[in-house]
Amino acid sequence: MNAEIISVGTELLLGAVVNSDAAIVARALSGLGINLLHTCVVGDNPQRLKEAVETAISRSDLLVMTGGLGPTADDLTKETTAAAAGKRLCLHQPSLERIQNYFNERQVSENQQKQAWLPEGCHVLQNDNGTAPGCAFQAENGCTILMLPGPPSELAPMLHNYAVPYLQQSQEFTIVSHNVRIYGRGEAPVAQMMDDLMDGENPTLAPYANEGECYLRVTAKAPSQEKADQLCQPLIQEIQKRLGDFVYGVDVDSLEELVVQLLREQGKTLATAESCTGGLLAKRLTDISGSSAVFHMGVVTYANAAKEQLLGVPPGILEAHGAVSPETARAMAQGIVEASGSSLGIGITGIAGPEGGTREKPVGLIYIALSDGRETWVAKRSPIGRTKSRDWHRHCAASQALDMVRRYLAGLPVLAEHSYEGDKTSRG
Amino acid sequence: MNAEIISVGTELLLGAVVNSDAAIVARALSGLGINLLHTCVVGDNPQRLKEAVETAISRSDLLVMTGGLGPTADDLTKETTAAAAGKRLCLHQPSLERIQNYFNERQVSENQQKQAWLPEGCHVLQNDNGTAPGCAFQAENGCTILMLPGPPSELAPMLHNYAVPYLQQSQEFTIVSHNVRIYGRGEAPVAQMMDDLMDGENPTLAPYANEGECYLRVTAKAPSQEKADQLCQPLIQEIQKRLGDFVYGVDVDSLEELVVQLLREQGKTLATAESCTGGLLAKRLTDISGSSAVFHMGVVTYANAAKEQLLGVPPGILEAHGAVSPETARAMAQGIVEASGSSLGIGITGIAGPEGGTREKPVGLIYIALSDGRETWVAKRSPIGRTKSRDWHRHCAASQALDMVRRYLAGLPVLAEHSYEGDKTSRG
Repeated sequence: MNAEIISVGTELLLGAVVNSDAAIVARALSGLGINLLHTCVVGDNPQRLKEAVETAISRSDLLVMTGGLGPTADDLTKETTAAAAGKRLCLHQPSLERIQNYFNERQVSENQQKQAWLPEGCHVLQNDNGTAPGCAFQAENGCTILMLPGPPSELAPMLHNYAVPYLQQSQEFTIVSHNVRIYGRGEAPVAQMMDDLMDGENPTLAPYANEGECYLRVTAKAPSQEKADQLCQPLIQEIQKRLGDFVYGVDVDSLEELVVQLLREQGKTLATAESCTGGLLAKRLTDISGSSAVFHMGVVTYANAAKEQLLGVPPGILEAHGAVSPETARAMAQGIVEASGSSLGIGITGIAGPEGGTREKPVGLIYIALSDGRETWVAKRSPIGRTKSRDWHRHCAASQALDMVRRYLAGLPVLAEHSYEGDKTSRG
Repeated sequence: MNAEIISVGTELLLGAVVNSDAAIVARALSGLGINLLHTCVVGDNPQRLKEAVETAISRSDLLVMTGGLGPTADDLTKETTAAAAGKRLCLHQPSLERIQNYFNERQVSENQQKQAWLPEGCHVLQNDNGTAPGCAFQAENGCTILMLPGPPSELAPMLHNYAVPYLQQSQEFTIVSHNVRIYGRGEAPVAQMMDDLMDGENPTLAPYANEGECYLRVTAKAPSQEKADQLCQPLIQEIQKRLGDFVYGVDVDSLEELVVQLLREQGKTLATAESCTGGLLAKRLTDISGSSAVFHMGVVTYANAAKEQLLGVPPGILEAHGAVSPETARAMAQGIVEASGSSLGIGITGIAGPEGGTREKPVGLIYIALSDGRETWVAKRSPIGRTKSRDWHRHCAASQALDMVRRYLAGLPVLAEHSYEGDKTSRG
C-alpha cells in the first residue's frame, strides 16, 4: 500500500510552524507497514490544493490530509478534497452536537458549525481534543482519504485512537514494531555490528539516530499481533546479546522515563547538582509526570560561591582544580546527596560553549559524577570530531548522567566503556 | 518570484526526523519576499525524485533542494537534479581540497570525494560546518536551483551566510522584515487591534503565534535596506503605541535573551526557585551563552522539605496554605534572594499536570513570585479553555516569570493587567 501526505496551511509555507504533523503521521504509517512515498505542503489556495489532491488520488492508495479543518479554513480543504474525490459534503448531526456541547452555553458561530459538514458516507473520526472532526472515505477510484486536524495535540490522539485502528481493519496483516533503545554506541557502529541482520524481510531491522542516542526498530508482519510478536522476539534477543548492557530498554520512551520508573520500583530518590547543564537534567526528570515521588531537589550552581554554599564544595578544590574538574564534579555529587538526603546524587560541571573554552579545557569537556553517599563515580566527556552546539553538549551530558543512574539501579558497572562515536552520528 | 522546496530523504518519510529544514528555508524565503507555493518530500528514489524536480522546474522560478548531498547519497540527488536541469557534474577542485583538509591526514574515501562533483558552471556555496558543499545554478528554462545539505547545523549557516546573499543579488528590491515581540496578549486580540493595519501592501503586517506568545512581522520592500527600514519604522511605532508595554522588543530572539541582556546592562543578578517548572526556567536562562554573569544559582524544590531547607519556607505556610499557594510562591522568591544574595529572585509553584489536579487547585493553576528583597509580587495563572499539556503549562509559567523580570528591569509595573487569552492561540 503506497501512501502520500498533504499538509495544508500557509503558516507552514512561511516557516512559522514546523511540519511535525507529517512526521507523526509518517511514523504511524511506517508502524503499519504502509509505504509513504511523498509528502507535500500546500497553502490555503484552492487551485493548488485541487491539483495536489488530484495528483495524490491518481498515484496513491492512501492519502492523508493534515490541517485546514478548523473553523476558518474548513470550506477550502474539505470542499476541495471532497470535490476532487467526487463527493458532496453533508451535515453530520452527532458532530454538530459535539461542537455545541464543546462550547456549552456559548454561541456557536456559523463557521464553527461548518466543521460538522463532512464528505457523504464517510467514517467520522472523533476529535477528543478540539472541535473539528476528522474523517475517512474512499475516492471514486478506490484511493482511501483520511482528513486529520492540524494542531498536533488534536491530530496525534485522533490518529492513534481512531485512524490507525481504521487502517488496521483494512490491512490483511498486522504490523508490529519494537524499538530497541541504545545508549553509549552510535548509529554507525551499531549498524556495522548488525550488518548481517539487516537483510531480513520479516522481521526487518533498521537503525535510527536521535539526539546522541540511537535505536533499532524491529518490524514484523503477520496475520495476528501474537504471531508478529513471535517473529520479532528472536531478533530482539540477538540484538540484546550483541549489544549487552548498551541496550537500556525495548519500547521505552526515554532514559528519563526509565530512570524515574526504576527509582520508583526501588523506592530510591535522586537529587541533581548542575552547572553547565543549567537545570536541563532536572527539567528532563520533571518532564515525567509523577517524578515528584523520586526527585525532591535539584540545584543549579553556576557560580563557585553557589557550589560552596549549597553543596559544600571545598574552596580548596575549586582553587586547586577549577570548577571544571573531576574533583569538583565529585564534590558536587557528594554535596547534593548530603544536602538532600536523597539516595543518589548527580553532579555535572563542564564547558557547554560556544564561549569559555581554552586549550586545556575545550568546549565540550564535561565531568559527570554519581554518588550514592558511599561511593562516587566520575565520567569524563571530551569533544570529538566537528564542533557541536551548546544544546548538543548539554543534552548529551544530561543523557549520560541518566544512563549512569540507569546502570547503577540495574546493578551494572556505572562507568561503561563507552564509545562516544555515537555522538557523531546525525542525519545524513 | 515563486519558489518550491524539495527535501530528499527516506528518513523524513519514515517520520524518524521532523523536516525542520523546510521551515528554516521557508522563513528565509519569506524574509526575502519570495512566495513559497509548494514543499514536498521524496525518498531516496531516483524516479520519483526526477518527477518531482521536473515538475518543480516547470512551475517555479526558484527550487530549493535540501538533503541528499552527503557521502552516501550524493550521486542520486545531485545527478538526478542536474540531469533534470540539463547539466553535467564536474569536479570542483577547491571543494575537493576543502574535503581533504577537513579529514586532515585521514584517508578520504571515494564517496567523500564525490561530494566535490557539482553541476557545471554552478555558484558553489561553501559548507563551514561539514564536508558537502552546496550550489546554485540555472536550469535551461531559467529556473534557479539551490542545493543545500540536510543536517540543519550545516544548512542554516550556509543558507544565511551564502545562499541568501546570492538570492538578494538577483532581486531587484531589498526586503526587510522586523519582528515585534509581544508578551501578554494573544494572536487573536492582537490581530483584532491591528485589523486596520493589516491591509497595507508595503510595508505588510502579519501576526504569528508561538508557544504562548505572539509576534507581528513588519515587512517592507525598497531599492535599499535604508529605504525599506524607513518604510517599516512608522508602522512599528504605531504598533508600539497601541500595544504599549506588551511589546517587549523588536527583533529580540526571546524573553530569556532580553532578560539576560537587561540584567547584564544593569549589573544585576537573578536566582530561581522552581517547583512545577522543575528547572525549565533555569534551563532557558542558561540556554543563553554568557548567562553565568547574571545567573549564579537556581534550585528545584519539588518536595516540601526542600522548600523548607533550601529556601527557608516556613512549615506553617506550607501547612496553612499548601505548596501551591501565593504565600508559598512569595516565600520561595524571598527565600532564594536571601540564600543566593542575588538582586532578584523568582519563585514558581503550581500544578503542571496531567496528574495532581483537584477541584480547588486544578491542573494549570500556577503562582509566580518575583522579589527584589524589599518588595515581592505574585502573579496567578489559572487554566482557561481547553486542556493543555504539561509542557505547555511549564513553558508558559517560565515565560511569565521572565516577563515579570523584564517588566521590573524596564521600570514597568511588574504585574501587567494581562489577558491570558493569549494562551489560547495556536495554529489553526
